[in-house]
Amino acid sequence: MNPFFNNHGPFKIKDILNLISASIYPKNLDAKVFDIKDLSSANKGCITFFHSKKYKILAKSTNASFCITTDSLKNEISENCVPLVVKNVLIAVAKITEIFYPDSINDEFDNSVLLISKTKFKDTVKYGENVLVGQNVKIGKNCLIGHNSIIEKNVVIDDNCTIGSNTIIRNTLVKNNVSILDNCVIGKKGFGFFPNNISNHRYPHIGTVIINEFAEIGCGSTIDRGSLSNTIIGKNTYLDNQIHVAHNVQIGNNTIIAGQVGIAGSTVIGNNVKIGGQAGISGHLKIGNNVEIGGGSGVIRDIPDNLKVMGYPAKNIREFLRNNK
Amino acid sequence: MNPFFNNHGPFKIKDILNLISASIYPKNLDAKVFDIKDLSSANKGCITFFHSKKYKILAKSTNASFCITTDSLKNEISENCVPLVVKNVLIAVAKITEIFYPDSINDEFDNSVLLISKTKFKDTVKYGENVLVGQNVKIGKNCLIGHNSIIEKNVVIDDNCTIGSNTIIRNTLVKNNVSILDNCVIGKKGFGFFPNNISNHRYPHIGTVIINEFAEIGCGSTIDRGSLSNTIIGKNTYLDNQIHVAHNVQIGNNTIIAGQVGIAGSTVIGNNVKIGGQAGISGHLKIGNNVEIGGGSGVIRDIPDNLKVMGYPAKNIREFLRNNK
Amino acid sequence: MNPFFNNHGPFKIKDILNLISASIYPKNLDAKVFDIKDLSSANKGCITFFHSKKYKILAKSTNASFCITTDSLKNEISENCVPLVVKNVLIAVAKITEIFYPDSINDEFDNSVLLISKTKFKDTVKYGENVLVGQNVKIGKNCLIGHNSIIEKNVVIDDNCTIGSNTIIRNTLVKNNVSILDNCVIGKKGFGFFPNNISNHRYPHIGTVIINEFAEIGCGSTIDRGSLSNTIIGKNTYLDNQIHVAHNVQIGNNTIIAGQVGIAGSTVIGNNVKIGGQAGISGHLKIGNNVEIGGGSGVIRDIPDNLKVMGYPAKNIREFLRNNK
Repeated sequence: MNPFFNNHGPFKIKDILNLISASIYPKNLDAKVFDIKDLSSANKGCITFFHSKKYKILAKSTNASFCITTDSLKNEISENCVPLVVKNVLIAVAKITEIFYPDSINDEFDNSVLLISKTKFKDTVKYGENVLVGQNVKIGKNCLIGHNSIIEKNVVIDDNCTIGSNTIIRNTLVKNNVSILDNCVIGKKGFGFFPNNISNHRYPHIGTVIINEFAEIGCGSTIDRGSLSNTIIGKNTYLDNQIHVAHNVQIGNNTIIAGQVGIAGSTVIGNNVKIGGQAGISGHLKIGNNVEIGGGSGVIRDIPDNLKVMGYPAKNIREFLRNNK
Repeated sequence: MNPFFNNHGPFKIKDILNLISASIYPKNLDAKVFDIKDLSSANKGCITFFHSKKYKILAKSTNASFCITTDSLKNEISENCVPLVVKNVLIAVAKITEIFYPDSINDEFDNSVLLISKTKFKDTVKYGENVLVGQNVKIGKNCLIGHNSIIEKNVVIDDNCTIGSNTIIRNTLVKNNVSILDNCVIGKKGFGFFPNNISNHRYPHIGTVIINEFAEIGCGSTIDRGSLSNTIIGKNTYLDNQIHVAHNVQIGNNTIIAGQVGIAGSTVIGNNVKIGGQAGISGHLKIGNNVEIGGGSGVIRDIPDNLKVMGYPAKNIREFLRNNK
Repeated sequence: MNPFFNNHGPFKIKDILNLISASIYPKNLDAKVFDIKDLSSANKGCITFFHSKKYKILAKSTNASFCITTDSLKNEISENCVPLVVKNVLIAVAKITEIFYPDSINDEFDNSVLLISKTKFKDTVKYGENVLVGQNVKIGKNCLIGHNSIIEKNVVIDDNCTIGSNTIIRNTLVKNNVSILDNCVIGKKGFGFFPNNISNHRYPHIGTVIINEFAEIGCGSTIDRGSLSNTIIGKNTYLDNQIHVAHNVQIGNNTIIAGQVGIAGSTVIGNNVKIGGQAGISGHLKIGNNVEIGGGSGVIRDIPDNLKVMGYPAKNIREFLRNNK
């Protein structure tokens, strides 16, 4: 179940096929499709997608009933799943996601908000001036929300959380004992779209941001919500000021990220990782556990567990320092 | 006509010469000077300036009546234009700009603003809480402005535009169908001044920011207005979060710029350019059409059309990857 | 005297020893300890700390009565000062600082604030809408504070200062003629803590931010306050947009720092320094006077006076350009 966006399905598979030009068709055109999910979270009755060899293992074991894919990948999919072969997987996925979740494309400001003093939270939350709260918001015990902050619709904040001033949160799950400091924007749609020379076509973002227990997010940081999956900040992971975390990024537990670091879309970072200031990490990478990335590094390849790297592109830190005496 | 700053001219050329120490003088000291503009936009009756060989071709064909320049460049100027030779062109230009546009130096907060509910826009704009609007503002049809945003004086927003929350806009032209997301500051004075060991001398910024149709500006971005010319974002150009665009930068159409990129003053970027996250581009450069700049790159030289570059300093991407296996 | 945080001392040295496991003890366990300070500012009756050979000269001449240190450094300390030898100096210092200054650990939003129109500043300050001012704030003559800005408790603003809109200031001394532009966060606690796999342990930050005369801080910048010492911005030093200055950094006078620069904790930067856009400077470095650091550089070593550097890691700029033709 998507926690925040309303699923307008189910749709018949023939209605979905009308949206996309698939060259392979299922037999039963009246079969119902209940949701669109990624390879690992899709259940029976779901449609999923598979567009890169990187995800071969997940494709082999997906529980989805249908899978948007390409001609060259179609034989890698679980035999219980019907491949629907298209030219551009991501555009097809975007079109299908849009009919299931039409509210997920635009991030207009939330005009359902009320001053917190006019909501049920007026007696349970310690709040500053001009705090706004939207619909479908839960806030636990012993929370603080600073001046001018906006908790837009579709936010769950658990217990003992501290939200700073001038911060905007939407489509986000904030677990117990999290601190989010001032001037952050958490949960906006990711920077994903299909270029088009008249007007780019926005990719729907139906994912959330999940910030786990005891994490801290520094001032002026931005964390975008996921497209089909979620953007996740691990337990007791600390982000310094002015950090950007793009959509679908997953950061493990006990990780420390210094100021002005940027992490591009869909990268997965392990536990106990240390990232120095201004380092940048490209998209779709896997950074192992206990990795240390020197300040200013540009990481453009996967990094296995326990490695210390530095440089642009980042390499073994000893090599970097030896080459740069 | 400057759309936002009030021209206090005309001034007689002898009054202008009183401000600067020019070693060559025009014959008619009573000639009127109506405005100060750059080489290409200056008309008859205007004063302009020419301080670098880079602008030779523009100097040869300028329509300006007077031109502040140096001894070594004075012979490159159009013969209809009287050169006024000084030691420091930019300081002279600053002094002259100040008398024409005395209001352009400071960016004090706009205390002319009213709550939007007390303005003519209360029925034509969909707006959040605590939205402020200054004088000399136009807002078209079907626009949204989020909570706590401030549209200061001297802003024109056309139709179908979306402004996020906590965003500040001044001295800016926003064309149809533009989105500006949360926590941005658009149109402040650029970071231009003459160092001085007691108190730096601010360069006037009489230009605007122009954001063209269907462009999108990500959260936490800053776009400074131009000094004598304008800062321009092209049609359907998308900027991700935490981007900084300095004064006088011109970005073409259908360009895609990922998070945390910084573009220094007066650089010109073409159409269909892709710039990866955290890349930085030095000032006064020319980046061609269809260029791709890898994430983390530092661009310190012009880039011709159709080139893919990466590295610091940025070079051909194949060379960069070959050298960094 | 700490200007902002209330000193809960004095404590007897035996109470302090109860907090830490020191292997060397003073003779008089009832001696009073009045404050905790760094090596150079500590007076008689204070406790200080010494954890790195870098600070040998300061340790030799400290006036402190007690000094937390390690076994290998204990003989380098002034003979009037009693060494207290521990395994982890910084954790011991954090524990001691917490008992002296228990209010310095958390940065909860200031709920003592009032709308400025309800304070004594209503007639002496020119202010925008929704400006909030906390307790223990002083604001001098002829100051401006823009819309939605929050001057939290423990701020002193002298004369002729301009604060932009949406800016938050706490624990900060702002000297005459300073400009702080929009969307800044000045004076929050630094990013200093002891990693701990359940919940990191925050290091107390009892220092302030001091912004000296005629300095300017650009939009979207963050300047963290010091831990035991202060974070200092020099006279007439200009910071462009989106700059991050970490705790304990000291920047000299007449220095110019372009957009998106990041300076890590405890680094000291001289006078008349120029730092290009997106440069990053590691922590605990010393950058001399008249240094020029090229845009995009990553500085990981000290730089002596008058040097021009560029690159990552930064080296002599001629060498950088020669190697990168």
